[in-house]
Amino acid sequence: MKMHTVAELLKKENTLHEVTIKGWVRSFRSNRFIALNDGSTLNNIQCVVNFEQTDEALLKRITTGAAVSVTGELTESQGQGQSLEIQVKSIEILGDSDPETYPIQPKKHSFEFLRENAHLRTRTNTFSAVMRLRSSLSFAIHKYFNENGFYYMHTPIITGSDAEGAGEMFRVTGLDPKNPPLTEDGKVDYSEDFFGKETNLTVSGQLEAEAYAMSLGKVYTFGPTFRAENSNTSRHLAEFWMIEPEVAFMDLAGNMDLAEDFMKSVLSYILKHNQEDLQFLNQRLLDEEKTKPQADRSDMSLIEKISFVVENNFKRVSYTEAIDILRDSKPNKKKKFNYIIEEWGADLQSEHERFLVEKHFKCPVILFDYPANIKAFYMRLNEDGKTVRAMDILFPGIGEMVGGSQREERLEVLKEKMKALNIDEEELWWYLDLRKYGTAVHSGFGLGFERLVMFATGMGNIRDVIPFPRTPQNAEF
Amino acid sequence: MKMHTVAELLKKENTLHEVTIKGWVRSFRSNRFIALNDGSTLNNIQCVVNFEQTDEALLKRITTGAAVSVTGELTESQGQGQSLEIQVKSIEILGDSDPETYPIQPKKHSFEFLRENAHLRTRTNTFSAVMRLRSSLSFAIHKYFNENGFYYMHTPIITGSDAEGAGEMFRVTGLDPKNPPLTEDGKVDYSEDFFGKETNLTVSGQLEAEAYAMSLGKVYTFGPTFRAENSNTSRHLAEFWMIEPEVAFMDLAGNMDLAEDFMKSVLSYILKHNQEDLQFLNQRLLDEEKTKPQADRSDMSLIEKISFVVENNFKRVSYTEAIDILRDSKPNKKKKFNYIIEEWGADLQSEHERFLVEKHFKCPVILFDYPANIKAFYMRLNEDGKTVRAMDILFPGIGEMVGGSQREERLEVLKEKMKALNIDEEELWWYLDLRKYGTAVHSGFGLGFERLVMFATGMGNIRDVIPFPRTPQNAEF
Repeated sequence: MKMHTVAELLKKENTLHEVTIKGWVRSFRSNRFIALNDGSTLNNIQCVVNFEQTDEALLKRITTGAAVSVTGELTESQGQGQSLEIQVKSIEILGDSDPETYPIQPKKHSFEFLRENAHLRTRTNTFSAVMRLRSSLSFAIHKYFNENGFYYMHTPIITGSDAEGAGEMFRVTGLDPKNPPLTEDGKVDYSEDFFGKETNLTVSGQLEAEAYAMSLGKVYTFGPTFRAENSNTSRHLAEFWMIEPEVAFMDLAGNMDLAEDFMKSVLSYILKHNQEDLQFLNQRLLDEEKTKPQADRSDMSLIEKISFVVENNFKRVSYTEAIDILRDSKPNKKKKFNYIIEEWGADLQSEHERFLVEKHFKCPVILFDYPANIKAFYMRLNEDGKTVRAMDILFPGIGEMVGGSQREERLEVLKEKMKALNIDEEELWWYLDLRKYGTAVHSGFGLGFERLVMFATGMGNIRDVIPFPRTPQNAEF
Repeated sequence: MKMHTVAELLKKENTLHEVTIKGWVRSFRSNRFIALNDGSTLNNIQCVVNFEQTDEALLKRITTGAAVSVTGELTESQGQGQSLEIQVKSIEILGDSDPETYPIQPKKHSFEFLRENAHLRTRTNTFSAVMRLRSSLSFAIHKYFNENGFYYMHTPIITGSDAEGAGEMFRVTGLDPKNPPLTEDGKVDYSEDFFGKETNLTVSGQLEAEAYAMSLGKVYTFGPTFRAENSNTSRHLAEFWMIEPEVAFMDLAGNMDLAEDFMKSVLSYILKHNQEDLQFLNQRLLDEEKTKPQADRSDMSLIEKISFVVENNFKRVSYTEAIDILRDSKPNKKKKFNYIIEEWGADLQSEHERFLVEKHFKCPVILFDYPANIKAFYMRLNEDGKTVRAMDILFPGIGEMVGGSQREERLEVLKEKMKALNIDEEELWWYLDLRKYGTAVHSGFGLGFERLVMFATGMGNIRDVIPFPRTPQNAEF
């Protein structure tokens, strides 16, 4: 007999036939009703056990977490809360679950407790919904790019260069950890290491993606990136996944169009394909917000927030306009900001970004044309000589979701910038080659995937949207 | 005016209207015919320049590799080899390419030379075709799993455990490379490292995928994995991508069905969607084979090989049967094998695998039920007590493409195995939990993505199927 999934059975219209289903017991009540889940959907299927005709010893083994195989008739349910159920004819215990020691009880667990049991936490509704959404978003991303003529490329994880100078990197090495070989002048001799030089974990695939864009036209990466920053916050991971499209012949305006269309498309996808999981997380967030003071509650529910982003234009605001707005804002005048905005050139802090997005515009905002000296070396200098064609997309409740730019395509300008910042031309010889041979306007952006999953699931801690988070002092599992 | 891609233009049926296209000059002959490529397809579009009405200085800048923007009328071509062409009205040089120094000339370059110019090699037909196929295969993989109810999960890259004991790993560290902190007894004190313990780059996401399969049912990973093996061969990379599905309630027979269906599906996808690139690589391989002695040439062309796999059943052969076949084979009797097969229990070498696949069965072969002592600790012990439910899928010309198994789901058997192999129970406490709470039969496999791309493109060196290969002494770009 073909094995079915719960998702398949619950969609069935023809009932009254025999089925076999395997899954895990979520609960067993009144010695009669098994709520069975197999991960294929948030929903359980109710399996009705005829306890009078079932062996007592067997009944005792139907405990939360046990794996069982159930055979019976699929019928319309008389009870509330489900349309179909299985009248059990036979049940087999595949794997027991000792109710005395099983960590995942049918009750509310703290997220902290579940993080410590990350190998079991997808046995809860919340985490199974989150991880199904994570998977759906991943697929939506690949689908979007595939349909729009982009090629997926895998950029290197181990890198010999510090692409963006984006802070601390993890070293990758095969050298003796205690007594590494030394050069004559007493430095660690990386020429003896596996790759013949010092190597690190990548912080971005952008530079390599640029190389491919300058031949294949439209490409994107979707892979892990790393930061060895000692930030123990609810928004930072040492290992996270990033999406980085890069497009030849596209300027900053096109980049904004692409990013906005992309975000709307992937969020539409989950609205269409993941309603059950979203409804559940929507309710979870409503319940959680009820415990908060009125002022801290969100105006919109999770699904309303996602729909809002899909249906409304992102507001495009230049850095210069943003500074004007901030300088004239109440919190600035009343010195409520920790960093008071006094003049053009100030780096925006998250308090400023939140004000713009959550108080002033109340929608996603694309800030663009930032001062050159607060942005990376590879960004296209504007004709004013002081701003670069950078953009950041800010989301309510999340902050920066996307960071991108038009890239500096002019060899001499790029070289000058690198010189000023002490970036070695020899290390990036190949990157400069892209400007030597057939250079052209091109642009791209980076999207932190976990930020997107946080937005789409309403989860407040980034550790709860990746299967096994890597953070300072934690590489468990 | 909307910008078009070459792929779009070549599909157009309505001609005689003005278009603008941007791309790179592949060649410029007779001061008249530009072959323009933008990466959207293998094909170039021919742009016909009216040289009599074009400035001499401009004509000189139309060189191989230059980026140009061309505006003109799309018309039916009078020339051979293309159906459409552009009658150029205006042309703008976006980025020059000095013909004296540009590395990618319109001639045949050695693959070794192109590896040294990996940032430019997708400007050739061969590498653009390979990388488009790589992208298509990636998408086909995600599509297959998505359509079949699997969830994509990201397993950790940085790991505190040696999942499979699969050989040497790269260390990931933030400690001082020269003078690391030491414990009282003089060892490196990893408690001071970023994660508070020794960490490495993952060799497999399988164990974590098992945790998710035991709650979500069907999952898969598709991510980078690493081996710090000093193998400088055409088949090994230090960094490569692996696909690892894992399914609850599925036994070894189901695993074979899944693997075969999966391989056929993704290869069908490229036959359907990538004909131009495949035709090109098919011809490339035929040309390459002509330079070989007759005996070394393949019976089938690239497309024939792919079609053969899609259309024929994989042969399923137990290890025990395979040993019998090998023992009685000509090369064994005539001592042509480097390792003579004498008795049951011998580990199969690639010469044996090649004989089975290429000479004996002449089709993909699934070998299964291997001796326990040559396989990993987590594989399900058969009732005979000496074999495990392992499978390897061998492909003609490639060797091992897939390695998988049914996993040992019995807590006590697994513990005994770990004890015998000195694997620390405490380190894998969470993996054992999966057998303590609701254990069930489950299975999965690992597919080396680059091996698949090699098979699908006919490329003979694994360094030529990944954008920027990582190998001993090489982490360039």
